Amino acid sequence: MVKNMDLENLFRENLKKYVAYETGEIPLGENWLLLDTNENPYPPIPEIIKDLKETMANPEILKKYPDPNALEVRKAILNQLLRDKDTLTNRNTVFVGNDCDGILEVLFKVFIDTGDQIVVFYPTNAIYKALATLYEAKINEIKLNEDFSIPDEVYSAKGKLLFIKSPNDPNGQSHPNEQIQKICQHFPGIVVVDEEYADFSDKTCVSLLKNNKNLIVVRSLTKAFSLAAFRIGFALADARIIKEMNNVKLPYNTSSLAQIAAISCIKHRRKVFEQNEKILSERKKLVDALNSFDGVSVQPSDANFIFIKFADKSKTLKFIWDLKDLKILTRHFSKPGLYNYIRMTIGTEEENNRFLSEFEKIAKKYL
Amino acid sequence: MVKNMDLENLFRENLKKYVAYETGEIPLGENWLLLDTNENPYPPIPEIIKDLKETMANPEILKKYPDPNALEVRKAILNQLLRDKDTLTNRNTVFVGNDCDGILEVLFKVFIDTGDQIVVFYPTNAIYKALATLYEAKINEIKLNEDFSIPDEVYSAKGKLLFIKSPNDPNGQSHPNEQIQKICQHFPGIVVVDEEYADFSDKTCVSLLKNNKNLIVVRSLTKAFSLAAFRIGFALADARIIKEMNNVKLPYNTSSLAQIAAISCIKHRRKVFEQNEKILSERKKLVDALNSFDGVSVQPSDANFIFIKFADKSKTLKFIWDLKDLKILTRHFSKPGLYNYIRMTIGTEEENNRFLSEFEKIAKKYL
Repeated sequence: MVKNMDLENLFRENLKKYVAYETGEIPLGENWLLLDTNENPYPPIPEIIKDLKETMANPEILKKYPDPNALEVRKAILNQLLRDKDTLTNRNTVFVGNDCDGILEVLFKVFIDTGDQIVVFYPTNAIYKALATLYEAKINEIKLNEDFSIPDEVYSAKGKLLFIKSPNDPNGQSHPNEQIQKICQHFPGIVVVDEEYADFSDKTCVSLLKNNKNLIVVRSLTKAFSLAAFRIGFALADARIIKEMNNVKLPYNTSSLAQIAAISCIKHRRKVFEQNEKILSERKKLVDALNSFDGVSVQPSDANFIFIKFADKSKTLKFIWDLKDLKILTRHFSKPGLYNYIRMTIGTEEENNRFLSEFEKIAKKYL
Repeated sequence: MVKNMDLENLFRENLKKYVAYETGEIPLGENWLLLDTNENPYPPIPEIIKDLKETMANPEILKKYPDPNALEVRKAILNQLLRDKDTLTNRNTVFVGNDCDGILEVLFKVFIDTGDQIVVFYPTNAIYKALATLYEAKINEIKLNEDFSIPDEVYSAKGKLLFIKSPNDPNGQSHPNEQIQKICQHFPGIVVVDEEYADFSDKTCVSLLKNNKNLIVVRSLTKAFSLAAFRIGFALADARIIKEMNNVKLPYNTSSLAQIAAISCIKHRRKVFEQNEKILSERKKLVDALNSFDGVSVQPSDANFIFIKFADKSKTLKFIWDLKDLKILTRHFSKPGLYNYIRMTIGTEEENNRFLSEFEKIAKKYL
């Protein structure tokens, strides 16, 4: 008979040191402005909604399993989404998965044995270290430079997987392709470039895939396309890597509706990107407006969020809490080097104006 | 620079012996009768379609992340789906995951370190051994008795996880609660009862949860509810186990639409189960009709499929191929002890009649 105490002994030992990935707060009540989780402020465009509604009009699709190979999604990615990009063109170089974090987990299943080393930067998204702990990888954490650029020590780093988030979270800047190329040449393992937010700028490293066997590019189909409710994204890499990824994934790793949403958002991408132009112009407006405050500085961002720096660390939390009192959620990271910053998602024009107007009032108190 | 040959050395060694879970064949062309993958032959009831369409009418939901805690789904499971069952009643005893296979993978992440032992039966679904290979568990495979019942040697089995599929796939019979209870008492690890198909009969072991700390029951919300296109299911267990499962799962492991579909199918469960009554009466009709053929025998099933036995092994493949020529797909397992069988999904009345009529013609040739 297994008792309470025995139960504790059955759990894996390393779960004790495992820190789960933290999701955004979901506050109770009305009129909250949630600028903490980097969702797109606009709903999906009507064309996508129409395609999804048409699926519902044919319920026979819903009783059937999804296509485990997501063939139509892969074709749409290659023939439409990437057709003007100078990248891989073979259907067997595309993997479709349960959005970026689901794809990252598949990479651990393909490459990581207990004790293998991975390389991550600091600061960056917490998911890499979370997965590494779960899959019992050793973690070599390289500190980014003060300006969040990658230091030269990366060129001597060793390991099975090296993760580059580009644009990086939380600061929002992309890493230059020249540097990614050089890392691919020096690193003895696989270089994973996580471009979850890349659709909010023109920068991408997919053109490097042709000449770098050890490069994997991971992209989301839900962030720029306003479909965070769905879970779907893709990875591009050498066909040999994609084959192993397909081999170890769960057979039905994406739902039929996510596949249909993906195909639809690729088909209507030009209109979606037009809608997103507003995010980019609002991003510029916010950066300029915030830089006009004494003791506040913001670098340009390639993502749908910005990273606001306060010269005086003690002011940061005051802003966070005053904003929260006004029902505006932003994100603070209580971690070395990040205490002076607030990460803020770009909202709609109206939302950003509300933010700026409240920010100005708070600035009068503290700056 | 990583070259082709180096790439091979980067993959995990044990992927070489990993055999991926095989999904059903997707034949080209019209008028196929697919009785090989155990999907529900009826589309979701109109009430569920209506709820999904209403979600689409509010596209704001789609731009937002799913609730990582699936709180409303968990409440619906406890307060509605299980309210008349004599089982656990605490919200923290429910885990919502990416259908049964996604939930099973989470269990490996909670309990299995390299080299830990798991116990599986033979024959049963291939997913347990596939996951065990991937997570580098040792496999203790116990052969079921000739009648697919569990042999007494199970009571001395050791390991971290023991998997019972009930009703079992491919034979369709449930294991008795008395035996599951006794296994829970003897096994020093966790007993996982995978009730993916349990909604096609009244049998369930959820009442055993109250008195067995080491029991986990896994259930699907897509099989009986005609929602195979979605990926959502749940697990019931001691709150301590559920806490660790939530800790290691990917933050957004189920999509918002899957959650809405789950809530809707639970709300309308009585009407769904009414629709499924037809599957149960058709199941009885098929069993009786097939048993009337000389050299063919079928046991009663608790699932939405039946396992048809041919006295003469050499006849089995003849039937399979002749059926396929007539555009009817069923499932054959080329494995010890299973050569004499065809697994067939229960279809609609019309589909089953087409099957029976063709079966009769083939029987005239071979039986």
